[in-house]
Amino acid sequence: MREAYHVELGQLAEELANMCSMSATAMELATRALLDTDLGLAEQVIGDDAKIDDARSSCEEHAYALLALQAPVATDLRTVLAAIHAAESLERMGDLALHVAKAARRRHPNPVLPEQIRPYFSEMGRVAVELARDAEQVILNKDIDQARSLEEADDEMDDLHRQLFSVIMEKDWSHGVAAAVDVTLLGRFYERYADHAVSVAKRVVFVVTGRMPGYAEDEDV
Amino acid sequence: MREAYHVELGQLAEELANMCSMSATAMELATRALLDTDLGLAEQVIGDDAKIDDARSSCEEHAYALLALQAPVATDLRTVLAAIHAAESLERMGDLALHVAKAARRRHPNPVLPEQIRPYFSEMGRVAVELARDAEQVILNKDIDQARSLEEADDEMDDLHRQLFSVIMEKDWSHGVAAAVDVTLLGRFYERYADHAVSVAKRVVFVVTGRMPGYAEDEDV
Repeated sequence: MREAYHVELGQLAEELANMCSMSATAMELATRALLDTDLGLAEQVIGDDAKIDDARSSCEEHAYALLALQAPVATDLRTVLAAIHAAESLERMGDLALHVAKAARRRHPNPVLPEQIRPYFSEMGRVAVELARDAEQVILNKDIDQARSLEEADDEMDDLHRQLFSVIMEKDWSHGVAAAVDVTLLGRFYERYADHAVSVAKRVVFVVTGRMPGYAEDEDV
Repeated sequence: MREAYHVELGQLAEELANMCSMSATAMELATRALLDTDLGLAEQVIGDDAKIDDARSSCEEHAYALLALQAPVATDLRTVLAAIHAAESLERMGDLALHVAKAARRRHPNPVLPEQIRPYFSEMGRVAVELARDAEQVILNKDIDQARSLEEADDEMDDLHRQLFSVIMEKDWSHGVAAAVDVTLLGRFYERYADHAVSVAKRVVFVVTGRMPGYAEDEDV
Protein backbone atom coordinates (compact mmCIF):
# COMPACT_ATOMS: atom_id res chain seq x y z
CA MET A 1 0.00 0.00 0.00
CA ARG A 2 2.76 2.50 0.88
CA GLU A 3 4.22 2.27 -2.61
CA ALA A 4 0.88 2.68 -4.37
CA TYR A 5 0.16 5.59 -2.04
CA HIS A 6 3.39 7.36 -2.96
CA VAL A 7 2.89 6.84 -6.69
CA GLU A 8 -0.63 8.28 -6.47
CA LEU A 9 0.53 11.15 -4.29
CA GLY A 10 3.21 11.95 -6.87
CA GLN A 11 0.54 12.11 -9.57
CA LEU A 12 -1.57 14.39 -7.41
CA ALA A 13 1.43 16.72 -6.95
CA GLU A 14 1.91 16.82 -10.72
CA GLU A 15 -1.73 17.75 -11.21
CA LEU A 16 -1.37 20.57 -8.68
CA ALA A 17 1.81 21.81 -10.36
CA ASN A 18 -0.05 21.81 -13.66
CA MET A 19 -2.84 23.88 -12.08
CA CYS A 20 -0.18 26.40 -10.92
CA SER A 21 1.06 26.65 -14.47
CA MET A 22 -2.47 27.16 -15.82
CA SER A 23 -3.28 29.91 -13.29
CA ALA A 24 0.08 31.59 -13.96
CA THR A 25 -0.65 31.65 -17.70
CA ALA A 26 -4.19 32.92 -17.08
CA MET A 27 -2.87 35.85 -15.01
CA GLU A 28 -0.07 36.56 -17.48
CA LEU A 29 -2.50 36.79 -20.42
CA ALA A 30 -5.15 38.66 -18.39
CA THR A 31 -2.55 41.27 -17.40
CA ARG A 32 -1.47 41.69 -21.02
CA ALA A 33 -5.14 42.00 -22.05
CA LEU A 34 -5.52 44.70 -19.40
CA LEU A 35 -2.35 46.63 -20.29
CA ASP A 36 -2.67 46.32 -24.08
CA THR A 37 -6.50 46.59 -24.27
CA ASP A 38 -6.38 43.25 -26.11
CA LEU A 39 -9.87 41.77 -26.47
CA GLY A 40 -8.61 38.52 -28.05
CA LEU A 41 -6.40 37.72 -25.06
CA ALA A 42 -9.19 38.60 -22.64
CA GLU A 43 -11.54 36.21 -24.49
CA GLN A 44 -8.88 33.49 -24.39
CA VAL A 45 -8.54 33.74 -20.59
CA ILE A 46 -12.34 33.77 -20.20
CA GLY A 47 -12.72 30.72 -22.45
CA ASP A 48 -9.92 28.79 -20.76
CA ASP A 49 -11.16 29.22 -17.19
CA ALA A 50 -13.35 26.11 -17.46
CA LYS A 51 -10.15 24.07 -17.95
CA ILE A 52 -8.83 25.21 -14.56
CA ASP A 53 -12.19 24.35 -12.95
CA ASP A 54 -12.03 20.90 -14.57
CA ALA A 55 -8.45 20.40 -13.37
CA ARG A 56 -9.58 21.17 -9.84
CA SER A 57 -12.47 18.68 -10.06
CA SER A 58 -10.10 16.06 -11.39
CA CYS A 59 -7.55 16.76 -8.64
CA GLU A 60 -10.27 16.53 -6.00
CA GLU A 61 -11.60 13.26 -7.44
CA HIS A 62 -8.10 11.75 -7.39
CA ALA A 63 -7.60 12.88 -3.80
CA TYR A 64 -10.97 11.35 -2.85
CA ALA A 65 -10.05 8.07 -4.56
CA LEU A 66 -6.73 8.05 -2.72
CA LEU A 67 -8.49 8.58 0.62
CA ALA A 68 -11.11 5.91 -0.10
CA LEU A 69 -8.74 3.25 -1.44
CA GLN A 70 -5.67 3.81 0.75
CA ALA A 71 -7.34 5.16 3.92
CA PRO A 72 -4.16 7.05 4.86
CA VAL A 73 -3.69 8.19 8.46
CA ALA A 74 -1.48 10.71 10.28
CA THR A 75 0.82 12.71 8.00
CA ASP A 76 -0.30 10.86 4.88
CA LEU A 77 -3.89 11.85 5.55
CA ARG A 78 -2.93 15.49 6.12
CA THR A 79 -0.92 15.48 2.92
CA VAL A 80 -3.91 14.48 0.82
CA LEU A 81 -6.13 17.05 2.58
CA ALA A 82 -3.49 19.72 1.95
CA ALA A 83 -3.67 18.83 -1.74
CA ILE A 84 -7.46 19.29 -1.72
CA HIS A 85 -7.07 22.74 -0.12
CA ALA A 86 -4.31 23.70 -2.58
CA ALA A 87 -6.52 22.74 -5.54
CA GLU A 88 -9.25 25.00 -4.16
CA SER A 89 -6.83 27.96 -3.88
CA LEU A 90 -5.52 27.36 -7.39
CA GLU A 91 -9.03 27.29 -8.85
CA ARG A 92 -9.70 30.59 -7.07
CA MET A 93 -6.52 32.08 -8.59
CA GLY A 94 -7.93 31.16 -12.00
CA ASP A 95 -11.18 32.95 -11.11
CA LEU A 96 -9.27 36.08 -10.12
CA ALA A 97 -7.39 36.09 -13.45
CA LEU A 98 -10.81 35.65 -15.09
CA HIS A 99 -12.10 38.76 -13.29
CA VAL A 100 -9.14 40.77 -14.63
CA ALA A 101 -9.86 39.52 -18.17
CA LYS A 102 -13.56 40.39 -17.81
CA ALA A 103 -12.70 43.92 -16.68
CA ALA A 104 -10.55 44.31 -19.82
CA ARG A 105 -13.42 43.02 -21.98
CA ARG A 106 -16.06 45.16 -20.25
CA ARG A 107 -14.31 48.45 -21.04
CA HIS A 108 -13.04 47.46 -24.50
CA PRO A 109 -12.14 49.28 -26.78
CA ASN A 110 -11.35 51.73 -23.97
CA PRO A 111 -8.45 50.94 -21.63
CA VAL A 112 -9.48 50.15 -18.04
CA LEU A 113 -6.37 51.77 -16.58
CA PRO A 114 -5.39 55.43 -16.65
CA GLU A 115 -1.89 55.79 -18.13
CA GLN A 116 -0.47 56.84 -14.73
CA ILE A 117 -1.60 53.55 -13.16
CA ARG A 118 -0.32 51.12 -15.79
CA PRO A 119 3.16 50.62 -14.25
CA TYR A 120 1.61 49.38 -10.98
CA PHE A 121 -0.38 46.70 -12.77
CA SER A 122 2.54 45.77 -14.94
CA GLU A 123 4.49 45.10 -11.71
CA MET A 124 1.61 43.45 -9.87
CA GLY A 125 1.08 41.17 -12.87
CA ARG A 126 4.77 40.26 -12.94
CA VAL A 127 4.81 39.46 -9.20
CA ALA A 128 1.55 37.47 -9.41
CA VAL A 129 2.81 35.28 -12.25
CA GLU A 130 6.16 34.83 -10.48
CA LEU A 131 4.31 33.66 -7.34
CA ALA A 132 2.29 31.07 -9.24
CA ARG A 133 5.40 29.81 -11.08
CA ASP A 134 7.30 29.66 -7.75
CA ALA A 135 4.43 27.71 -6.17
CA GLU A 136 4.70 25.27 -9.10
CA GLN A 137 8.40 24.77 -8.36
CA VAL A 138 7.72 24.37 -4.63
CA ILE A 139 5.24 21.59 -5.40
CA LEU A 140 7.52 19.82 -7.86
CA ASN A 141 10.71 20.14 -5.78
CA LYS A 142 9.24 20.33 -2.24
CA ASP A 143 11.77 23.13 -1.72
CA ILE A 144 10.98 24.80 1.60
CA ASP A 145 13.40 27.68 1.05
CA GLN A 146 11.64 28.56 -2.17
CA ALA A 147 8.31 28.46 -0.33
CA ARG A 148 9.65 31.07 2.09
CA SER A 149 10.74 33.29 -0.82
CA LEU A 150 7.09 33.39 -1.87
CA GLU A 151 6.32 35.32 1.30
CA GLU A 152 8.84 37.98 0.22
CA ALA A 153 7.18 38.27 -3.19
CA ASP A 154 3.84 38.52 -1.41
CA ASP A 155 5.23 41.43 0.66
CA GLU A 156 6.24 43.06 -2.61
CA MET A 157 2.65 42.65 -3.83
CA ASP A 158 1.29 44.18 -0.62
CA ASP A 159 3.64 47.16 -1.04
CA LEU A 160 2.50 47.70 -4.62
CA HIS A 161 -1.11 47.42 -3.48
CA ARG A 162 -0.58 50.05 -0.78
CA GLN A 163 1.19 52.40 -3.21
CA LEU A 164 -1.68 51.95 -5.67
CA PHE A 165 -4.18 52.95 -2.98
CA SER A 166 -2.27 56.05 -2.01
CA VAL A 167 -2.25 57.12 -5.67
CA ILE A 168 -6.03 56.64 -5.95
CA MET A 169 -6.62 58.51 -2.70
CA GLU A 170 -4.41 61.49 -3.63
CA LYS A 171 -6.21 64.79 -3.98
CA ASP A 172 -4.96 65.25 -7.56
CA TRP A 173 -6.50 61.99 -8.84
CA SER A 174 -7.96 63.27 -12.10
CA HIS A 175 -9.41 60.12 -13.66
CA GLY A 176 -12.81 60.19 -12.03
CA VAL A 177 -14.73 57.86 -9.75
CA ALA A 178 -15.45 55.09 -12.29
CA ALA A 179 -11.73 54.56 -12.99
CA ALA A 180 -10.99 54.63 -9.24
CA VAL A 181 -13.59 51.90 -8.66
CA ASP A 182 -12.17 49.72 -11.47
CA VAL A 183 -8.62 50.16 -10.20
CA THR A 184 -9.68 49.41 -6.60
CA LEU A 185 -11.27 46.10 -7.54
CA LEU A 186 -8.46 45.11 -9.91
CA GLY A 187 -5.89 45.85 -7.21
CA ARG A 188 -7.77 43.59 -4.83
CA PHE A 189 -7.90 40.77 -7.41
CA TYR A 190 -4.09 40.79 -7.75
CA GLU A 191 -3.57 40.98 -4.00
CA ARG A 192 -5.93 38.05 -3.36
CA TYR A 193 -4.27 36.05 -6.14
CA ALA A 194 -0.92 36.51 -4.37
CA ASP A 195 -2.42 35.48 -1.01
CA HIS A 196 -3.75 32.27 -2.54
CA ALA A 197 -0.36 31.48 -4.13
CA VAL A 198 1.29 31.88 -0.72
CA SER A 199 -1.37 29.66 0.83
CA VAL A 200 -0.61 26.94 -1.76
CA ALA A 201 3.10 27.17 -0.92
CA LYS A 202 2.35 27.01 2.82
CA ARG A 203 0.35 23.83 2.34
CA VAL A 204 3.34 22.30 0.57
CA VAL A 205 5.65 23.39 3.40
CA PHE A 206 3.28 21.62 5.73
CA VAL A 207 3.39 18.49 3.61
CA VAL A 208 7.20 18.53 3.76
CA THR A 209 7.66 19.62 7.38
CA GLY A 210 4.47 18.37 9.03
CA ARG A 211 3.91 21.82 10.57
CA MET A 212 0.34 23.11 10.16
CA PRO A 213 0.11 26.53 8.47
CA GLY A 214 -1.79 29.33 10.27
CA TYR A 215 -4.92 30.83 8.77
CA ALA A 216 -3.71 34.33 8.05
CA GLU A 217 -6.47 36.66 6.95
CA ASP A 218 -5.86 38.62 3.79
CA GLU A 219 -4.32 42.02 4.15
CA ASP A 220 -6.65 44.94 4.63
CA VAL A 221 -6.45 47.76 2.17
CA MET B 1 -18.42 1.69 13.49
CA ARG B 2 -21.45 3.08 11.64
CA GLU B 3 -23.01 4.24 14.87
CA ALA B 4 -19.85 5.93 16.14
CA TYR B 5 -19.45 7.53 12.72
CA HIS B 6 -22.95 9.01 12.82
CA VAL B 7 -22.52 10.33 16.36
CA GLU B 8 -19.27 12.04 15.38
CA LEU B 9 -20.76 13.38 12.17
CA GLY B 10 -23.61 14.83 14.21
CA GLN B 11 -21.11 16.60 16.45
CA LEU B 12 -19.30 17.96 13.40
CA ALA B 13 -22.60 19.33 12.05
CA GLU B 14 -23.23 21.06 15.37
CA GLU B 15 -19.79 22.65 15.26
CA LEU B 16 -20.48 23.94 11.74
CA ALA B 17 -23.88 25.29 12.79
CA ASN B 18 -22.16 27.07 15.66
CA MET B 19 -19.66 28.61 13.21
CA CYS B 20 -22.63 29.88 11.13
CA SER B 21 -24.03 31.52 14.22
CA MET B 22 -20.67 33.13 15.06
CA SER B 23 -20.19 34.53 11.54
CA ALA B 24 -23.79 35.78 11.50
CA THR B 25 -23.23 37.63 14.78
CA ALA B 26 -19.91 39.02 13.52
CA MET B 27 -21.58 40.45 10.40
CA GLU B 28 -24.55 41.76 12.38
CA LEU B 29 -22.30 43.66 14.79
CA ALA B 30 -19.89 44.80 12.06
CA THR B 31 -22.81 46.24 10.07
CA ARG B 32 -24.09 48.08 13.15
CA ALA B 33 -20.56 49.38 13.81
CA LEU B 34 -20.48 50.62 10.21
CA LEU B 35 -23.95 52.23 10.23
CA ASP B 36 -23.73 53.72 13.75
CA THR B 37 -20.00 54.64 13.67
CA ASP B 38 -19.69 52.52 16.81
CA LEU B 39 -16.03 51.91 17.68
CA GLY B 40 -16.83 49.59 20.61
CA LEU B 41 -18.79 47.19 18.39
CA ALA B 42 -16.05 47.30 15.75
CA GLU B 43 -13.44 46.39 18.38
CA GLN B 44 -15.66 43.56 19.61
CA VAL B 45 -15.87 42.00 16.13
CA ILE B 46 -12.12 42.43 15.63
CA GLY B 47 -11.38 40.83 19.01
CA ASP B 48 -13.78 37.93 18.46
CA ASP B 49 -12.47 36.88 15.06
CA ALA B 50 -9.85 34.61 16.63
CA LYS B 51 -12.72 32.55 18.10
CA ILE B 52 -14.05 31.82 14.61
CA ASP B 53 -10.54 30.86 13.46
CA ASP B 54 -10.24 28.52 16.48
CA ALA B 55 -13.65 27.00 15.75
CA ARG B 56 -12.49 26.26 12.22
CA SER B 57 -9.28 24.60 13.44
CA SER B 58 -11.28 22.53 15.90
CA CYS B 59 -13.79 21.51 13.21
CA GLU B 60 -10.98 20.53 10.89
CA GLU B 61 -9.22 18.51 13.60
CA HIS B 62 -12.43 16.62 14.36
CA ALA B 63 -12.96 15.93 10.66
CA TYR B 64 -9.36 14.67 10.39
CA ALA B 65 -9.85 12.41 13.43
CA LEU B 66 -13.05 11.07 11.92
CA LEU B 67 -11.26 10.29 8.65
CA ALA B 68 -8.29 8.67 10.40
CA LEU B 69 -10.29 6.58 12.88
CA GLN B 70 -13.31 5.60 10.80
CA ALA B 71 -11.76 5.61 7.30
CA PRO B 72 -15.14 6.35 5.72
CA VAL B 73 -15.65 5.64 2.01
CA ALA B 74 -18.13 6.71 -0.69
CA THR B 75 -20.81 9.13 0.53
CA ASP B 76 -19.53 9.07 4.12
CA LEU B 77 -16.12 10.22 2.95
CA ARG B 78 -17.58 13.01 0.83
CA THR B 79 -19.69 14.14 3.74
CA VAL B 80 -16.66 14.68 5.95
CA LEU B 81 -14.80 16.46 3.15
CA ALA B 82 -17.85 18.70 2.58
CA ALA B 83 -17.67 19.61 6.28
CA ILE B 84 -13.99 20.59 5.90
CA HIS B 85 -14.86 22.84 2.93
CA ALA B 86 -17.82 24.36 4.79
CA ALA B 87 -15.60 25.21 7.78
CA GLU B 88 -13.20 26.99 5.42
CA SER B 89 -16.03 29.08 3.91
CA LEU B 90 -17.36 29.96 7.36
CA GLU B 91 -13.96 31.10 8.57
CA ARG B 92 -13.71 33.28 5.46
CA MET B 93 -17.15 34.79 6.25
CA GLY B 94 -15.75 35.73 9.65
CA ASP B 95 -12.77 37.42 7.93
CA LEU B 96 -15.10 39.43 5.71
CA ALA B 97 -17.08 40.65 8.73
CA LEU B 98 -13.72 41.53 10.28
CA HIS B 99 -12.84 43.65 7.21
CA VAL B 100 -16.12 45.56 7.61
CA ALA B 101 -15.36 46.18 11.29
CA LYS B 102 -11.82 47.34 10.46
CA ALA B 103 -13.17 49.80 7.88
CA ALA B 104 -15.47 51.25 10.57
CA ARG B 105 -12.52 51.53 12.98
CA ARG B 106 -10.18 53.03 10.37
CA ARG B 107 -12.47 56.00 9.65
CA HIS B 108 -13.69 56.48 13.23
CA PRO B 109 -14.96 58.99 14.47
CA ASN B 110 -15.99 59.76 10.89
CA PRO B 111 -18.64 57.56 9.26
CA VAL B 112 -17.35 55.41 6.38
CA LEU B 113 -20.60 55.69 4.44
CA PRO B 114 -22.14 58.78 2.89
CA GLU B 115 -25.72 59.22 4.17
CA GLN B 116 -27.14 58.39 0.72
CA ILE B 117 -25.47 54.97 0.77
CA ARG B 118 -26.47 53.83 4.26
CA PRO B 119 -29.77 52.16 3.24
CA TYR B 120 -27.92 49.83 0.84
CA PHE B 121 -25.62 48.58 3.57
CA SER B 122 -28.45 48.30 6.04
CA GLU B 123 -30.16 45.96 3.53
CA MET B 124 -26.97 44.11 2.54
CA GLY B 125 -26.22 43.54 6.22
CA ARG B 126 -29.72 42.21 6.82
CA VAL B 127 -29.49 39.80 3.85
CA ALA B 128 -25.97 38.66 4.81
CA VAL B 129 -26.99 37.83 8.39
CA GLU B 130 -30.16 36.11 7.13
CA LEU B 131 -28.04 33.95 4.81
CA ALA B 132 -25.72 32.85 7.61
CA ARG B 133 -28.68 32.10 9.92
CA ASP B 134 -30.40 30.16 7.11
CA ALA B 135 -27.21 28.17 6.48
CA GLU B 136 -27.21 27.31 10.20
CA GLN B 137 -30.77 25.99 9.91
CA VAL B 138 -29.90 24.05 6.75
CA ILE B 139 -27.06 22.33 8.61
CA LEU B 140 -29.15 21.55 11.68
CA ASN B 141 -32.27 20.39 9.80
CA LYS B 142 -30.71 19.19 6.51
CA ASP B 143 -33.60 21.01 4.88
CA ILE B 144 -32.96 21.09 1.13
CA ASP B 145 -35.80 23.50 0.40
CA GLN B 146 -34.32 26.02 2.80
CA ALA B 147 -30.94 25.60 1.07
CA ARG B 148 -32.58 26.60 -2.22
CA SER B 149 -34.10 29.69 -0.59
CA LEU B 150 -30.54 30.82 0.15
CA GLU B 151 -29.97 31.20 -3.58
CA GLU B 152 -32.89 33.64 -3.71
CA ALA B 153 -31.43 35.68 -0.86
CA ASP B 154 -28.09 35.62 -2.70
CA ASP B 155 -29.84 37.01 -5.81
CA GLU B 156 -31.21 39.79 -3.59
CA MET B 157 -27.64 40.53 -2.45
CA ASP B 158 -26.42 40.62 -6.06
CA ASP B 159 -29.21 43.07 -6.95
CA LEU B 160 -28.31 45.34 -4.02
CA HIS B 161 -24.65 45.13 -5.05
CA ARG B 162 -25.47 46.13 -8.63
CA GLN B 163 -27.68 49.03 -7.46
CA LEU B 164 -24.87 50.19 -5.19
CA PHE B 165 -22.46 50.25 -8.12
CA SER B 166 -24.80 52.23 -10.31
CA VAL B 167 -25.09 54.83 -7.53
CA ILE B 168 -21.30 55.11 -7.22
CA MET B 169 -20.89 55.37 -10.99
CA GLU B 170 -23.56 58.08 -11.43
CA LYS B 171 -22.30 61.43 -12.66
CA ASP B 172 -23.75 63.24 -9.64
CA TRP B 173 -21.75 61.19 -7.07
CA SER B 174 -20.63 64.01 -4.81
CA HIS B 175 -18.76 62.16 -2.04
CA GLY B 176 -15.36 62.00 -3.68
CA VAL B 177 -13.02 59.22 -4.71
CA ALA B 178 -11.99 58.05 -1.23
CA ALA B 179 -15.60 57.33 -0.22
CA ALA B 180 -16.20 55.58 -3.56
CA VAL B 181 -13.20 53.31 -2.93
CA ASP B 182 -14.38 52.46 0.61
CA VAL B 183 -17.91 51.73 -0.60
CA THR B 184 -16.60 49.60 -3.50
CA LEU B 185 -14.58 47.36 -1.21
CA LEU B 186 -17.28 47.13 1.45
CA GLY B 187 -19.82 46.17 -1.20
CA ARG B 188 -17.53 43.41 -2.37
CA PHE B 189 -17.08 42.11 1.22
CA TYR B 190 -20.86 41.69 1.64
CA GLU B 191 -21.26 40.09 -1.75
CA ARG B 192 -18.45 37.58 -1.09
CA TYR B 193 -19.89 36.82 2.36
CA ALA B 194 -23.20 35.91 0.69
CA ASP B 195 -21.44 33.72 -1.90
CA HIS B 196 -19.69 31.78 0.87
CA ALA B 197 -22.98 31.30 2.77
CA VAL B 198 -24.55 29.85 -0.39
CA SER B 199 -21.53 27.61 -0.85
CA VAL B 200 -21.94 26.27 2.72
CA ALA B 201 -25.61 25.53 2.00
CA LYS B 202 -24.73 23.80 -1.29
CA ARG B 203 -22.28 21.54 0.52
CA VAL B 204 -25.06 20.54 2.89
CA VAL B 205 -27.41 19.87 -0.04
CA PHE B 206 -24.73 17.60 -1.41
CA VAL B 207 -24.42 15.79 1.90
CA VAL B 208 -28.19 15.21 1.91
CA THR B 209 -28.71 14.44 -1.79
CA GLY B 210 -25.31 13.08 -2.84
CA ARG B 211 -25.24 15.52 -5.77
CA MET B 212 -21.92 17.40 -6.13
CA PRO B 213 -22.30 21.21 -6.17
CA GLY B 214 -20.76 23.18 -9.07
CA TYR B 215 -17.92 25.63 -8.52
CA ALA B 216 -19.67 28.87 -9.38
CA GLU B 217 -17.33 31.82 -9.63
CA ASP B 218 -18.32 34.87 -7.66
CA GLU B 219 -20.35 37.48 -9.45
CA ASP B 220 -18.47 40.18 -11.29
CA VAL B 221 -19.20 43.74 -10.39
